[in-house]
Amino acid sequence: MEQIKTFELSKDYLESLRQHIEGEDVAFIKSSMEDAIMADIAAILDELDMEEALFVLRALDTAVAADILIELDEDTQYRVIKAMEPSELAILIDQMESDDAVDVLNQLLVKDREEVIGYLEKKEKTLHIMELLRYDDDSAGGLMAKEFIKANQNWTVVQTIEEIRRQAENVDKIYSIYVVDNKEKLMGRVALKKIILAASNTKIADLYDENIVSVPTHMDGEEVAEVMRRYDLEAVPVVNVKNKLVGRITVDDILDLIREQAEEDMQAMTGISDDVEESDSVYRLSKARLPWLLIGMVGGLLGAGFIGFFEEGISAVTALAFFIPLITATGGNVGIQSSTLVVQSLAAKSVFEESLTKRFVKVLVVAVLNGLVLATFVLITVVFFYGQPLKFGLVVAIALFSVVLLASFMGTLTPIVLDKIGINPAMASGPFITTANDLLGLAVYFSVAMLLLKL
Amino acid sequence: MEQIKTFELSKDYLESLRQHIEGEDVAFIKSSMEDAIMADIAAILDELDMEEALFVLRALDTAVAADILIELDEDTQYRVIKAMEPSELAILIDQMESDDAVDVLNQLLVKDREEVIGYLEKKEKTLHIMELLRYDDDSAGGLMAKEFIKANQNWTVVQTIEEIRRQAENVDKIYSIYVVDNKEKLMGRVALKKIILAASNTKIADLYDENIVSVPTHMDGEEVAEVMRRYDLEAVPVVNVKNKLVGRITVDDILDLIREQAEEDMQAMTGISDDVEESDSVYRLSKARLPWLLIGMVGGLLGAGFIGFFEEGISAVTALAFFIPLITATGGNVGIQSSTLVVQSLAAKSVFEESLTKRFVKVLVVAVLNGLVLATFVLITVVFFYGQPLKFGLVVAIALFSVVLLASFMGTLTPIVLDKIGINPAMASGPFITTANDLLGLAVYFSVAMLLLKL
Repeated sequence: MEQIKTFELSKDYLESLRQHIEGEDVAFIKSSMEDAIMADIAAILDELDMEEALFVLRALDTAVAADILIELDEDTQYRVIKAMEPSELAILIDQMESDDAVDVLNQLLVKDREEVIGYLEKKEKTLHIMELLRYDDDSAGGLMAKEFIKANQNWTVVQTIEEIRRQAENVDKIYSIYVVDNKEKLMGRVALKKIILAASNTKIADLYDENIVSVPTHMDGEEVAEVMRRYDLEAVPVVNVKNKLVGRITVDDILDLIREQAEEDMQAMTGISDDVEESDSVYRLSKARLPWLLIGMVGGLLGAGFIGFFEEGISAVTALAFFIPLITATGGNVGIQSSTLVVQSLAAKSVFEESLTKRFVKVLVVAVLNGLVLATFVLITVVFFYGQPLKFGLVVAIALFSVVLLASFMGTLTPIVLDKIGINPAMASGPFITTANDLLGLAVYFSVAMLLLKL
Repeated sequence: MEQIKTFELSKDYLESLRQHIEGEDVAFIKSSMEDAIMADIAAILDELDMEEALFVLRALDTAVAADILIELDEDTQYRVIKAMEPSELAILIDQMESDDAVDVLNQLLVKDREEVIGYLEKKEKTLHIMELLRYDDDSAGGLMAKEFIKANQNWTVVQTIEEIRRQAENVDKIYSIYVVDNKEKLMGRVALKKIILAASNTKIADLYDENIVSVPTHMDGEEVAEVMRRYDLEAVPVVNVKNKLVGRITVDDILDLIREQAEEDMQAMTGISDDVEESDSVYRLSKARLPWLLIGMVGGLLGAGFIGFFEEGISAVTALAFFIPLITATGGNVGIQSSTLVVQSLAAKSVFEESLTKRFVKVLVVAVLNGLVLATFVLITVVFFYGQPLKFGLVVAIALFSVVLLASFMGTLTPIVLDKIGINPAMASGPFITTANDLLGLAVYFSVAMLLLKL
């Protein structure tokens, strides 16, 4: 056994695979991938053309092909699914756990989806899939699988082991047995370890742990992730409004979700409006970046109009123009720092949130501290290094101090307000705050200048 | 069983708890927390004063107190540990799994740490802890625990179940049994499910799956997280250079790590230089934010000096000053977008990375596209809405176009270079790129103006 890779994930292998695909050498494909882990084969397929990837999938056993299809990169998966015949796709879906099957089906148009479902052979699984399709993609219901082991509280250990045996084919990963009453209500769970160690005639009722965490079907996926992280869970049972056990979410699905979420948030904060990757097409990349650039542009143009009002002042004291970037950049930097802290504290909501007043008092104190340091630094530099009059230095320093204060408040308030009205605070915080603070900074700067320099 | 919270996590409970602590009512503390999940009690303790938290921990059974101590917020945990007597802390550490014990010990000074270790009672655990302390915090070795179940490949199922029984107390979560040869080399793993379903005299050698993923002790924690995400693992065995099985990392530790990492990266990108939270002290918050604000300030002051060179030009064409924020903001926005995409693609390294040339060609094409859209938009607005001469409109448009191109390259190149020389690209990318692009933008803007307007 090698470390990490049991399979040669190399450019050489990729080259040789391509040649064997061209030669339609099914035997090579099968034998070279025999001992590989699905995720590694998927990574190879992501590098192939769609036709080549499809050829490989068709060459492999359907159970293996189904596993690989699930692991493919989003784009590759979409193209492969689109290219497959409905009957062919149905054969693979028959081999998947219900949550994976739903992920695949959700990428098809309703019409195509129903055609594929029509070809499914396993009746129980079809019903499960149709149930799961009703839930919102991003909810606990949309994330859960119908494959899990449950035991009635009146069963014995032997009966439970029989159930495990019956379901062993369908349920890939068993962490715990969920315990239900006669009405299918979730009562608790038994760790697999306990089943192994208990005498075979022990009642499940005497074994199970009733202090367990479950989530409702309507809970948002991000919240499910936070619950699993907080309570160190490898799987969490999902219940409906009547506390009936309806599914299970495993941590592997949550890991993907957390990564996607973190990437999306960071992109949103930095003004990328669509979920893109460096490897996406030029068109997608341009499209994801233009909206906020244009909004920033409109902000810049408004700023230009605004500075235009002070044309005479600038003619009189040209040095006013010199410090425009200093003021706008500081406003932007302070604003984005503030909003990042708020966005992160909103993401990890606590029951014991600090009151708004307490929060803003703190923001004020931090801003005053930092503002004083920066303003002093700038006053000294402007007067002693740039040889400007003290009065002018004071204009820049006072404007800067005010900008730090205002930008801190804007940066703190904006995400809180967005969150309250139900908009993802990360999405609009970054670029919005930068642009707004540019304008705010200019207004403060020129107002202070007008007052102090009597322009 | 309630959903999510089996325990009343409320301000009312917190209030009542505080009163009972003051009244030294140990019975109330014990009974009210009896059925609670550790993470919930920890959340309550995070809200208490250190003395109060310590009182609660001392009131509870040591096994419970140990679990809670692990779950505490970093700051609370640190203060509680510092306040405890070495012998008292040792009693709790004796109850922890080795990885948690090491996390706690790592917060002490070497001298205090050794004193606590001297008080430990369980000899095997002490040796484990001392082994783990040798590894770097952030490496697989530092993350792993010594508690896991391993079976020799020559054992039978019955022998393995005996081993599970022997270790059941020590190993909280068993997902798989790791299989080793006589030299302790990792051979593969057996799912617990298989142990339950196999006949008791079956040899482990006939049951185990040899296609498994392991990680070396020196692997970086972030990389371990990526491996576990990619291969959908709930636990991963850790091996030393001789492929000897030395530990196990479970997914719950990785979930915390992923969240911390994502938060740190976002903070780094937005110019917060220390890992802080909104709830931290004013001093810590100020200190974390000042460094990049000061660097931004120096950038702004250099920019002021730079614009100063063009004082005469601005006097002649005051409108030049109007568009300074437009140019610098666009440069900043484009730069941060570019660097975000690169930082994210660096974080999810692929074997099949695109070549540098291919990458830059793509950056160029996207920049040209977006630059053209923005420049056209600005040209029209400046000439038709602001009534500036066409020549002046061209100055702004051409400068803007050039800034988009240059900022794209800067934003792409900087994280790649930082990554190559071993600096976290997220850390220096955000604020550095914004500041550098401000200066770059000004240089381009005034150069174009000098050329075209012959100032």
